[in-house]
Amino acid sequence: MSAEPCFDIAHLGHVELFTNKPQESLDFFVNIFGLTESGRAGDSVYLRAWDDYEFHTLKLTASNTTGVGHIGYRAASEAALLRRVAGIEGMGAGIGWVEGDLGHGRAYRFRDPDNHVFEIYFDTNKYVAPEGERPALKNQAQRNHGRGCAVRRIDHVNLLAQDVAAIRDFMPKALGSRVTEQIVLDSGEVGGCWFTVNNKSYDIAYTRDHTPAQARFHHVTYAVDQREHILEAADLFLENGVFIETGPHKHAVQQTFFLYVYEPAGNRVEIANAGARLILDPDWQTVTWTETERKKGQAWGLKTIESFHMHGTPPAA
Amino acid sequence: MSAEPCFDIAHLGHVELFTNKPQESLDFFVNIFGLTESGRAGDSVYLRAWDDYEFHTLKLTASNTTGVGHIGYRAASEAALLRRVAGIEGMGAGIGWVEGDLGHGRAYRFRDPDNHVFEIYFDTNKYVAPEGERPALKNQAQRNHGRGCAVRRIDHVNLLAQDVAAIRDFMPKALGSRVTEQIVLDSGEVGGCWFTVNNKSYDIAYTRDHTPAQARFHHVTYAVDQREHILEAADLFLENGVFIETGPHKHAVQQTFFLYVYEPAGNRVEIANAGARLILDPDWQTVTWTETERKKGQAWGLKTIESFHMHGTPPAA
Amino acid sequence: MSAEPCFDIAHLGHVELFTNKPQESLDFFVNIFGLTESGRAGDSVYLRAWDDYEFHTLKLTASNTTGVGHIGYRAASEAALLRRVAGIEGMGAGIGWVEGDLGHGRAYRFRDPDNHVFEIYFDTNKYVAPEGERPALKNQAQRNHGRGCAVRRIDHVNLLAQDVAAIRDFMPKALGSRVTEQIVLDSGEVGGCWFTVNNKSYDIAYTRDHTPAQARFHHVTYAVDQREHILEAADLFLENGVFIETGPHKHAVQQTFFLYVYEPAGNRVEIANAGARLILDPDWQTVTWTETERKKGQAWGLKTIESFHMHGTPPAA
Amino acid sequence: MSAEPCFDIAHLGHVELFTNKPQESLDFFVNIFGLTESGRAGDSVYLRAWDDYEFHTLKLTASNTTGVGHIGYRAASEAALLRRVAGIEGMGAGIGWVEGDLGHGRAYRFRDPDNHVFEIYFDTNKYVAPEGERPALKNQAQRNHGRGCAVRRIDHVNLLAQDVAAIRDFMPKALGSRVTEQIVLDSGEVGGCWFTVNNKSYDIAYTRDHTPAQARFHHVTYAVDQREHILEAADLFLENGVFIETGPHKHAVQQTFFLYVYEPAGNRVEIANAGARLILDPDWQTVTWTETERKKGQAWGLKTIESFHMHGTPPAA
Repeated sequence: MSAEPCFDIAHLGHVELFTNKPQESLDFFVNIFGLTESGRAGDSVYLRAWDDYEFHTLKLTASNTTGVGHIGYRAASEAALLRRVAGIEGMGAGIGWVEGDLGHGRAYRFRDPDNHVFEIYFDTNKYVAPEGERPALKNQAQRNHGRGCAVRRIDHVNLLAQDVAAIRDFMPKALGSRVTEQIVLDSGEVGGCWFTVNNKSYDIAYTRDHTPAQARFHHVTYAVDQREHILEAADLFLENGVFIETGPHKHAVQQTFFLYVYEPAGNRVEIANAGARLILDPDWQTVTWTETERKKGQAWGLKTIESFHMHGTPPAA
Repeated sequence: MSAEPCFDIAHLGHVELFTNKPQESLDFFVNIFGLTESGRAGDSVYLRAWDDYEFHTLKLTASNTTGVGHIGYRAASEAALLRRVAGIEGMGAGIGWVEGDLGHGRAYRFRDPDNHVFEIYFDTNKYVAPEGERPALKNQAQRNHGRGCAVRRIDHVNLLAQDVAAIRDFMPKALGSRVTEQIVLDSGEVGGCWFTVNNKSYDIAYTRDHTPAQARFHHVTYAVDQREHILEAADLFLENGVFIETGPHKHAVQQTFFLYVYEPAGNRVEIANAGARLILDPDWQTVTWTETERKKGQAWGLKTIESFHMHGTPPAA
Repeated sequence: MSAEPCFDIAHLGHVELFTNKPQESLDFFVNIFGLTESGRAGDSVYLRAWDDYEFHTLKLTASNTTGVGHIGYRAASEAALLRRVAGIEGMGAGIGWVEGDLGHGRAYRFRDPDNHVFEIYFDTNKYVAPEGERPALKNQAQRNHGRGCAVRRIDHVNLLAQDVAAIRDFMPKALGSRVTEQIVLDSGEVGGCWFTVNNKSYDIAYTRDHTPAQARFHHVTYAVDQREHILEAADLFLENGVFIETGPHKHAVQQTFFLYVYEPAGNRVEIANAGARLILDPDWQTVTWTETERKKGQAWGLKTIESFHMHGTPPAA
Repeated sequence: MSAEPCFDIAHLGHVELFTNKPQESLDFFVNIFGLTESGRAGDSVYLRAWDDYEFHTLKLTASNTTGVGHIGYRAASEAALLRRVAGIEGMGAGIGWVEGDLGHGRAYRFRDPDNHVFEIYFDTNKYVAPEGERPALKNQAQRNHGRGCAVRRIDHVNLLAQDVAAIRDFMPKALGSRVTEQIVLDSGEVGGCWFTVNNKSYDIAYTRDHTPAQARFHHVTYAVDQREHILEAADLFLENGVFIETGPHKHAVQQTFFLYVYEPAGNRVEIANAGARLILDPDWQTVTWTETERKKGQAWGLKTIESFHMHGTPPAA
């Protein structure tokens, strides 16, 4: 009899991003990327895409540095949350409970082997659109203003790590994630690893940090409905002087259509579309890419740009 | 503490469709719709879209009538399958185990309150692409030939029923489905109901049969990656003399971009794109549309065509 | 030896539209449709799409009514302009020279057989983008802000007329237009006629006015680069409460992908995409559609909506 | 008074391509690129896209080499043809009249300063679709089978030349072409030049041959209706093992969305979409790009690939 898959974690909830150019970053996320501000507290502005159902999916925090503050995942139920907490405590990775913020109730924090901070929670603050933000169709969280890239919802986050193989062991135990794809180099080293807790093909990815730094951030991604919207976004970035790092093109890994830019403080941001691709198979076998296969470049032959391997935030000393 | 959501059923697996014009129907599904034949046995041809991971998702069976033979759902594990079987037997809806076919192993059959036949199974025949069908990218089930509409994967099925409210009670109990959206008329009658077992916004829908017939079929839907592919499909249907019933347009309910045609035997087939819309919220609240709201037509104002309410297969006596 | 085609007129230049809700109309054209204001004088606001090369393509004039003020065409040269003026004077249709406005120099005005006012001019005011409107790519007239529908350029105008056959005779003589397509009813009456002076498949169309009024306006159209942009525009209109009359769909005549809305004062506005369709053949033979063919509806079967035949501006008494 | 623009040449008609792998090239153009064979004579197969109005736009000729045979332009009238012939004879560039082929009647041949062979003609063989090729819509030349890339119509050709400045002088005199855009290096050398005879932004381009060879070919381009079709084509090329050189991406020059591949014999082929961009201005001023501007790469930052500067056909000795 097959093992039972774990469904304790429902989805990636939010990412906290540090910026040392808070006003410029906010202007980028609101006016170019198309997020909506749902609240402010302390040094943080809470932002959301028009079809995110929670209060926020991006917590933008003014800081003296860049990179990721923490990553939040929402559990499938209160009971599921407690099962995960017990498991993580048993792994010795736990930090402990925090009270939550504008976006959600109490959350349990822990660290991955590369010292990125995560939290899991169930009690959340579902977004209720005020008058001016009410959508025409009631099955949508918020009005789509069509402002800037007008991204639809948070999609995934990509972190850097010293030891991706350690992460590959950790995530399935901590969150019940499945490893949908990975890159294994000729040396046996794991070059990259893609995880999911649900039917999305991935909600988090880790790639090898080529500097000795820990807890670094590679990018956060929001989804749009169509590939054409990414082509339009490319023009919008061009017109607004946003630095385009690479794309639009199609990844071989996961086949996502992508475009990468840097927000003003230097954090990498992706806008992506996966088409109708989902991982529906409950016993999906991990797809492993070899070093040779990866050298072919992206799906249509684009060579992976050097900065994609080297640039993370905060910058390595 | 919140109730625990059920994850026993992984996804819609396949639909068996009856045709009294087997050769014309097969030609349509292969050359116009773009499915690939993966096998034949008895009166049936097994068909699949290029990114369906199982052996087949459409079983096309020659018959003296049209409509649906049975609908198959794959369980998340063997244990989950047995939990569902126990539940369904307890509901008195069970038919019993069958041996399976070319596409999967043993399956447990049952009837919904309108007498449509379902089966659930875990043991499946995963598709292994022969030489000529191997994809360029190894994370894809099969080569995409770009033939006809070149649909990507099965998406959902829509059935007709005398008592949709009864179905609304039945499906969550039988399959653990969630009701994501519904139409409730001013009379209190449930006009339509959309269900999902995973993160797709729906994998099955039921609408009211306005004839006294039972167990009728409304349509089966395959997904494509982009809305533009549906516009291209419309031209392809036009060039090939396929009857276009309505669309392309965007549904208000579920916001799916759609196009409906009749295959040669008269069964309705849909090609659709949901964009990046997913139901990620583990405690999603059912969206209820009123009669007044539905009278506005589809999302952009298209009036629902009369045949959409009346045409099902087999034809009502 | 074949007759020499006439190239005296280069293209449709601008349309003057009357509105009795000037502020609401302006807000629609700037914030929803995505035009940019380039100047104001008297009761008129001059508007342009981001890739229109002239100062303006829409002159929005506050009035006590709606409908079209005049339609301007730009000649290919000063000599060509004078040849056309001589021809039109010879036809007895001339009004005389006017001084021009913010958008162009002196222009020669005339009337079509249905009393719509036209003008032709060569001396024009080419748009020079001020600092904040400079595009990232120098081969583009103005920055594309991505605001609202962000239409690219004026495409065509559609007028109503009592006697479309008379127009069919008039336009080739007055402007050197070619008749690319037409509808001829079983009665012999010309139901519609599409004209072009260049490689676009049409820059003006006339359809039969089913009321006894003269000089009425059917719609003005702006082009976008992709069909997907029209689908996005449909959502934008929906979110902003703009009345969508019909579409998105594909016309059988000219194969344009279309979407029709009413601006706040009631003038019909279209957003369209012709794909890569051009009339390159210098001796293109007019395509004639019969009444039977037109009854099939639009390209993919959409029935032409009643208001499309009846609604024009100003409203018929 | 402004000079009168010349309209003697209507459009690019066809390109003759040499292949030393005739069967593989033909299979590529028919089954992958999606052209239709309209006839054969001698060593040549005549091919056409589904909305090309003439008999053929590509003449594929078996040879012991690759590269371009000749380029054909259609005149606007018989009189216009004779005017051009007189002009070209006066320039001393003429070769003389040839009888024509399956595709058109008599044609006048001449050489450009780099020794590429051109012909101009008026009398043409308009395509009349046989039974199986009749389109559903009568304003379309041929049925669109949706086979392979299903390109719509020929768009332009790009040649290599030793002295692009000489070509820049020649083409306006020979064909009445306008120079819409050009690249002028810091040294004053003309690096590239784009010409049009009509409203398309270009129908021929020349770029600098970095080898000492003459009369070489860079690529021929067919247009599709939407950018998304090019993304689909990229997948089709990938699945079929066609060499993708660069793209999809957007050119800064002319803003065309592009994808370049090599057909089996090594000739470069482009599939492109210009959106709704047209050159309507009769006195369009040439846009000049500097060396610095070109070093920024393509519109969204893609660096121009080395082979794009070096690979032409036939290969340089």
